[in-house]
Amino acid sequence: MAKRPGEFELIAELFAPLAAGYPGALDLKDDAAIVETPPGQCLVVTTDTIVAGVHFLPDDPAESVARKLLRVNLSDLAAKGARPTLYLLSLTMPESTEIGWLRDFAFGLALDQREFDIALAGGDTTSTPGPLTLTVTALGEIGHGKEIRRSGARTGDRVFVSGTLGEAALGLKSLRGELANLAPEHRTALVARYRVPQPRVSLGQSLVGLATACCDVSDGLVADLGHICETSRVAAEIAVDRIPLSPATRAALAIDPDLIKLVATGGDDYELVFTAPASQAGEVVGRARDLGVAVAEIGQCVPGAGVALLDPQGRPLTLSGAGWRHF
Amino acid sequence: MAKRPGEFELIAELFAPLAAGYPGALDLKDDAAIVETPPGQCLVVTTDTIVAGVHFLPDDPAESVARKLLRVNLSDLAAKGARPTLYLLSLTMPESTEIGWLRDFAFGLALDQREFDIALAGGDTTSTPGPLTLTVTALGEIGHGKEIRRSGARTGDRVFVSGTLGEAALGLKSLRGELANLAPEHRTALVARYRVPQPRVSLGQSLVGLATACCDVSDGLVADLGHICETSRVAAEIAVDRIPLSPATRAALAIDPDLIKLVATGGDDYELVFTAPASQAGEVVGRARDLGVAVAEIGQCVPGAGVALLDPQGRPLTLSGAGWRHF
Repeated sequence: MAKRPGEFELIAELFAPLAAGYPGALDLKDDAAIVETPPGQCLVVTTDTIVAGVHFLPDDPAESVARKLLRVNLSDLAAKGARPTLYLLSLTMPESTEIGWLRDFAFGLALDQREFDIALAGGDTTSTPGPLTLTVTALGEIGHGKEIRRSGARTGDRVFVSGTLGEAALGLKSLRGELANLAPEHRTALVARYRVPQPRVSLGQSLVGLATACCDVSDGLVADLGHICETSRVAAEIAVDRIPLSPATRAALAIDPDLIKLVATGGDDYELVFTAPASQAGEVVGRARDLGVAVAEIGQCVPGAGVALLDPQGRPLTLSGAGWRHF
Repeated sequence: MAKRPGEFELIAELFAPLAAGYPGALDLKDDAAIVETPPGQCLVVTTDTIVAGVHFLPDDPAESVARKLLRVNLSDLAAKGARPTLYLLSLTMPESTEIGWLRDFAFGLALDQREFDIALAGGDTTSTPGPLTLTVTALGEIGHGKEIRRSGARTGDRVFVSGTLGEAALGLKSLRGELANLAPEHRTALVARYRVPQPRVSLGQSLVGLATACCDVSDGLVADLGHICETSRVAAEIAVDRIPLSPATRAALAIDPDLIKLVATGGDDYELVFTAPASQAGEVVGRARDLGVAVAEIGQCVPGAGVALLDPQGRPLTLSGAGWRHF
């Protein structure tokens, strides 16, 4: 077990290179970073913390922990339609954190910096007697007044979701050994989605001026669409059979149909759920197709409150108890 | 022991009121906050984490923990000359965190929001099996290109420090029962400084265009002035008998003169150490006096590297071993 270098050596070796492309980071040698916003643009700012044993498993690869940490934050920016630019990292480490783990972690950050064209602007490293705790504050830019809020959904708007849902929750289940009957290739696909989500950064930006409300699916479809409904003061009806599913999820449902509950309520997918006027449904699908991102229309906004899930016959389903029930 | 409400109730009761004054916080009901920067201004961004048992004592009052958390961040902004505007809060809590503690914590935040004219813009709450871990990302504004960096000190510049040094480290010592011979009123004064530092926000802003380099004293005078020297590629000579001391620190030194070592190297004072041309020394003192902040000239920048401490006869002292030694 290689001894871990001190704070300043760690920053110089692992983190200063991640800030080298951004002059305002002042080489991570100053008290704070300088951020310029182009004329006509606003900053969009979000922060998320992940804790070992709570938000990731202690034996998840360091590289994927780094990418998940960045991506859960980028997903929040995507939901507002912002273009990510910079991030700050707070690394709170137990004594046992090894230098090899930190090198892999920094490598994961570097990979995603390239993928999303962002740079490290600053941060903090501290020690803890508790588990590894990682906070990122991510910054993005958007045209003045252009951000997509949660509050703009209106009755009659259609509800859309990007990608496929449920894999992250099923992936976590698989890591816990609960999907042993599922084929190995499906288990691998589910675990990969749990470990490294795909924030819909390009899609989010393409929805500016088109989507009336947007939220990323971190708490689960029902909960996150529920946030949109609550802030927008509308209800939503979702056709359960329209929720887009991956082959791995379909295979899991073939073994246990009750897992559809987890698909509708499980978190960590980091897809976008959003609303747009019915007249714009074609434009939504077209823009997504141009970006190579699947988008499915899964329901609509109606007067009232809350999220209703409808079966193929249009009858409301409830999630109470152990599985699905008809009212 | 009152049961703690869920995340959303907690945010609505305790934290949404702290964001009520800032429209870009979107009532803490959205994925991210919107930050506008006035024309000609840059944002200055910093993040700091504090951990129970590491950066504060588990039985420190919640109100003072909140204020220390904000103030260590505001101190970084002060060191750049920025005007603080907003902050994001990441609250990572063990199950045992009580609602009463959180109410007192939010009250402490509210007090300092008023004192420093800042607002909560966003945040995150998560749970941890470890100790309470608190991260703030603080944002401030400064005129384009006006920030005071660590890298601008030049040979011949004078070295200044605000307020008095050493109290925070002595306060921590006192809380550990190590200064039992000191009069109670002095112990109280030292502990108060440890628990609630005074970030030099107004002084920092007044030094824009005047100070050539600046850093806040979080790691200790020798270390933080060392950061300035390293980035500015100069050395500094400090006259130990010019380091400004409070009555409580003088009383502690009268009992144990060796504590001067702790005064020069102990962290957590959150004063500003800065450099300015010798010709501007009068202007520095004048501006500080106008703000009611004490500023002392304690040394100068010379060619070379590192920080040298000089005794009243101008002989270098070293901190190696258990106390002070002459070379």
